[in-house]
Amino acid sequence: MIDLRSDTVTKPTEAMRKAAFEAEVGDDVYVEDPTVNRLEEKAAEILGKEAALFVTSGTQGNQIAVLTHCQPGQEVIVEAESHVFYYEGAAMSAFAGIQPRTIKGVRGAMNPQDVKAAIRGEDIHFPETGLICLENTHNRAGGAIVPLENMKEIYEIAKEHNVPVHLDGARLFNASVATGIPLKEFAAQTDSVQVCLSKGLGAPVGSIIAGSKEFIAKARKWRKRLGGGLRQVGIIAAPAYIALTEMVDRLIDDHVNAKKLAEGLGQIPSLRVENEVETNIVLVNVADTGHDANSFLELIKKEEILAVGFGPTTVRFTTNYDVTSEEIDTVIDKIKSVLS
Amino acid sequence: MIDLRSDTVTKPTEAMRKAAFEAEVGDDVYVEDPTVNRLEEKAAEILGKEAALFVTSGTQGNQIAVLTHCQPGQEVIVEAESHVFYYEGAAMSAFAGIQPRTIKGVRGAMNPQDVKAAIRGEDIHFPETGLICLENTHNRAGGAIVPLENMKEIYEIAKEHNVPVHLDGARLFNASVATGIPLKEFAAQTDSVQVCLSKGLGAPVGSIIAGSKEFIAKARKWRKRLGGGLRQVGIIAAPAYIALTEMVDRLIDDHVNAKKLAEGLGQIPSLRVENEVETNIVLVNVADTGHDANSFLELIKKEEILAVGFGPTTVRFTTNYDVTSEEIDTVIDKIKSVLS
Amino acid sequence: MIDLRSDTVTKPTEAMRKAAFEAEVGDDVYVEDPTVNRLEEKAAEILGKEAALFVTSGTQGNQIAVLTHCQPGQEVIVEAESHVFYYEGAAMSAFAGIQPRTIKGVRGAMNPQDVKAAIRGEDIHFPETGLICLENTHNRAGGAIVPLENMKEIYEIAKEHNVPVHLDGARLFNASVATGIPLKEFAAQTDSVQVCLSKGLGAPVGSIIAGSKEFIAKARKWRKRLGGGLRQVGIIAAPAYIALTEMVDRLIDDHVNAKKLAEGLGQIPSLRVENEVETNIVLVNVADTGHDANSFLELIKKEEILAVGFGPTTVRFTTNYDVTSEEIDTVIDKIKSVLS
Amino acid sequence: MIDLRSDTVTKPTEAMRKAAFEAEVGDDVYVEDPTVNRLEEKAAEILGKEAALFVTSGTQGNQIAVLTHCQPGQEVIVEAESHVFYYEGAAMSAFAGIQPRTIKGVRGAMNPQDVKAAIRGEDIHFPETGLICLENTHNRAGGAIVPLENMKEIYEIAKEHNVPVHLDGARLFNASVATGIPLKEFAAQTDSVQVCLSKGLGAPVGSIIAGSKEFIAKARKWRKRLGGGLRQVGIIAAPAYIALTEMVDRLIDDHVNAKKLAEGLGQIPSLRVENEVETNIVLVNVADTGHDANSFLELIKKEEILAVGFGPTTVRFTTNYDVTSEEIDTVIDKIKSVLS
Repeated sequence: MIDLRSDTVTKPTEAMRKAAFEAEVGDDVYVEDPTVNRLEEKAAEILGKEAALFVTSGTQGNQIAVLTHCQPGQEVIVEAESHVFYYEGAAMSAFAGIQPRTIKGVRGAMNPQDVKAAIRGEDIHFPETGLICLENTHNRAGGAIVPLENMKEIYEIAKEHNVPVHLDGARLFNASVATGIPLKEFAAQTDSVQVCLSKGLGAPVGSIIAGSKEFIAKARKWRKRLGGGLRQVGIIAAPAYIALTEMVDRLIDDHVNAKKLAEGLGQIPSLRVENEVETNIVLVNVADTGHDANSFLELIKKEEILAVGFGPTTVRFTTNYDVTSEEIDTVIDKIKSVLS
Repeated sequence: MIDLRSDTVTKPTEAMRKAAFEAEVGDDVYVEDPTVNRLEEKAAEILGKEAALFVTSGTQGNQIAVLTHCQPGQEVIVEAESHVFYYEGAAMSAFAGIQPRTIKGVRGAMNPQDVKAAIRGEDIHFPETGLICLENTHNRAGGAIVPLENMKEIYEIAKEHNVPVHLDGARLFNASVATGIPLKEFAAQTDSVQVCLSKGLGAPVGSIIAGSKEFIAKARKWRKRLGGGLRQVGIIAAPAYIALTEMVDRLIDDHVNAKKLAEGLGQIPSLRVENEVETNIVLVNVADTGHDANSFLELIKKEEILAVGFGPTTVRFTTNYDVTSEEIDTVIDKIKSVLS
Repeated sequence: MIDLRSDTVTKPTEAMRKAAFEAEVGDDVYVEDPTVNRLEEKAAEILGKEAALFVTSGTQGNQIAVLTHCQPGQEVIVEAESHVFYYEGAAMSAFAGIQPRTIKGVRGAMNPQDVKAAIRGEDIHFPETGLICLENTHNRAGGAIVPLENMKEIYEIAKEHNVPVHLDGARLFNASVATGIPLKEFAAQTDSVQVCLSKGLGAPVGSIIAGSKEFIAKARKWRKRLGGGLRQVGIIAAPAYIALTEMVDRLIDDHVNAKKLAEGLGQIPSLRVENEVETNIVLVNVADTGHDANSFLELIKKEEILAVGFGPTTVRFTTNYDVTSEEIDTVIDKIKSVLS
Repeated sequence: MIDLRSDTVTKPTEAMRKAAFEAEVGDDVYVEDPTVNRLEEKAAEILGKEAALFVTSGTQGNQIAVLTHCQPGQEVIVEAESHVFYYEGAAMSAFAGIQPRTIKGVRGAMNPQDVKAAIRGEDIHFPETGLICLENTHNRAGGAIVPLENMKEIYEIAKEHNVPVHLDGARLFNASVATGIPLKEFAAQTDSVQVCLSKGLGAPVGSIIAGSKEFIAKARKWRKRLGGGLRQVGIIAAPAYIALTEMVDRLIDDHVNAKKLAEGLGQIPSLRVENEVETNIVLVNVADTGHDANSFLELIKKEEILAVGFGPTTVRFTTNYDVTSEEIDTVIDKIKSVLS
């Protein structure tokens, strides 16, 4: 199988497994696991924040951020197809009691004037705006990079209105590698940021949230309530450390592969690539093949190719560490062949 | 002052006050207030539902409906500027733990195909769709009437997907009077409905929610939790009964007045009426006067005219029982005069 | 029927009905109802607080207090049989996301040292203590008066730990009349207080919460979310004003009647009065009659006497404005007769 | 350091590390990690339930159970010092919106008649009873074993009232080893059960919840919302499998050590062992030493002994895999010496 369903499917490397085997560990509920402490310090440094916290998933990181920044009855401004709104089971309403206020973006980027207009004034009928939540790269926009300039403008508006900004940076490493802009420059336009180590970077498990010391202190308690206070967490923090420090540059390969895949599939007459590929995601519309997304996925699965549905006739391919350039050629050839 | 801020500002009539004075009362927590029981029966009959419940406001009625229909972690499909989303302090997320999924409508009506597309399939990442919430007439769409046909199409889709439908009918009486369609025909396209008696109908306090017996039994307990279980409620149920049974036909006067007002203001060159007036709301854009909404409101307040802001340069006028046709002429004249 | 189920069953007086009839009203969502404004000012003055807010029930007042003082994930210290814990449908957990920490009191009064021991220290596993909630008089303790001294000691401890105190004073007027201690002395031992006007004072509907201006400003928005933002509320605020200003002294009659009832029933061999009667509640154990509470209630209902169950073999009688001293004699005679 | 703070501090064994190194993995969000699937099947079998789910902590397992069984506004009956109430940050109120109803137990066991009396009847004022939650062994009762017979009686009552039962079995393995009663016999008295693999069994991370297939299907989505949906979870599931299958019998050593420790410390005149030691926890009252818990902990820390505070003058020692019988002797000797 050539698995292009997600970059989450990547298997840990031999080095990561070895690191797990050798990890120095302690009880992280007592903040005594040296490996996770080292990981958190390193992550804070890379992200340019005072402090960082290891969490078990991007969803957990985002939810902790919402719980820490907000109060029930507030509103959180989010892009209309952002992960935190679209793919997290309405958890931010279920747990934090907040109402998402969605804004349709362009390639994942909300218009700063739309954000400004959505911030609530004082009125007995209105929720207060408690948070603005960005996503970069933006998954449902096809791995689109939200421009740093856009983030800056939104952060200026946010600060004027005393509204904090959280960044779902599950794939922020991809944005950084593709643009050459350091992570900390993106993170500087936020009050808190979440980055995943288990996507393109290949860690088996784990994400990081980072922010001020005060933010992280509060976040730690919300993590505990969510059941994310673990014990000898070094076993997974050790491979995560390798992901963070040794696997970032390789993301460029995924981007090259994604572009190659988009080009190849784009030349098949019945397929239409929906997104301008900037990072590791390719969205393909299969309507003209006579298939819907599900039956198309069945079709290519028989060819030992896996992808995921992303809409009635849209399929998402995500390049990742476990898929080589040669395999991309194979994917293109097989799909071309099966459709002709 | 000519008060066009809302139809909620209407004062109770002499008959209503007399009814309050004479009301037979009992303790409604024990379901023993004969006046509220009579009101609830009458309301259920008019709305064509098995049972009804008196609540202290439209917001309370809507929130009870959400709490009764939904579970935390679900999603509720709502029009993007509907009252339950825009004006209720994010209460449905704060209390019921649900996430609103907004769809931009046209004149308050959501495209049924958009609704269908927004209903969630089964996926570990997705909230379940717990409710579809309509609003008729639609306040922020300028009192627009959502066509019965539109409601029917949405209800068909809802039933196919086993998703209940709630109608925020705070101004459903206006829709009924304007179209000649009985309330129960609108209500038949829903599982539950809320109607306000304290808007155009002039009751001092109160709304009704109606639905199946089972729905109302559960709703009663949620009302208690919200602090809406009252005692000798006949004092306000008696005037509400008059509103329900004697004040409906008079809404036509408000509609005539609103059309007159729209026509009159529309002839003032610097004003632009934003909505096609179907009921009792007129939205006026004041941008060309050089004013924003707030300063325009200040300006006309000096002329003893009250309205409310509805956007940066939009002002809402709502005709109501306490404003006569002659006063509408006065309003037009005074605004014409002050702007020239 | 002689109705001793609760003091909530009292019917409004002729003067109250007349006040409703004549009430000057306005739209209270715009804070323009002169009658409710006058009521709130008067209530604030009587309670010695900066500001007050009219709410539709004691439950609504208590829930608003919890929502205003607390954050989700906090703990509220309450007496183990207090109304806010026992009789409000778990609303404070459902809406405010807080966990009650119960302490068994003696005659409704918690031992201040128990309160102190229950305040949480800093620990990643612990909720923060967000509020201490008292009840005076204490319903399930049989209308027991919580001594002012007890309240003072608890308030001292609370202030040392920066934990606010709320008083459910649904029947605080009874405590005040019975002890001669002004309401404001009790209220001075709290950050916020709720008092009911619809119990012994006979208003048809309504309670008051009072506290600092800042507290009331926040409380007003939570009231709106709960659906307690009403319109021409003067219709019920006017009778409530009479309850507040003219009906307090008469509570002494209820206390005298309750003592007479306790004495009379206490002489019936098969009945045992469970509480020392300090105000208007008499708890009677009926176990020795061979009845449980339900069948005993059936028995006396046939004699045209109403009371309520309060435990497997406990029945509560609550004296109130609509029951005269002569009727108390009748009740004693009839019960004596039916049991012999 | 001899670390007796908790059995959570145990370091993974060489075999566990090796298992992590070699683990076959997949993406568990797609339910494709063979190692976690194998672990879940094995755990379900051992617990005698249809299905099981790996979670990252006992807290997460308990919270998922509450979220899956309950609706907001319900009540959960729990022992007054149970972990889910005392040590989980009020999460069940914050996230699930439920109210704990506490019952004081004897050695961790609630009297079944108290449980029965606490189940709510139907009343508009009452929350419904949504769950009964047991804990076995009971941490704050000093690792006390709740008798199987007690569990059976409670389960009978629960079934009569259609209330589900959840067991926090974080240390159920200790109860099983100490009594010789298989886990599945305890689990048979429940609808769902949570067991920890990272306490005495030594896994670095992880707990299991088990129940019916339907329960686990719903639980899986709540786990996702909490951020507990992980990716290549085999890295931690592999050592957890060893904990589950190879480390249970060794718990007897911890029990022997705990008894030895209790006996030894009990002979020191100024110390008083508070609990009858049945498993691996020893509670020691230090009041007569002139120390409070904190200063006593400081004192023994200088002797390279770690324990935790458990009350103003109570200290908890928990024996575990990393502490040998010889080290227990050392602990006794050092404490004897430092106190004399």
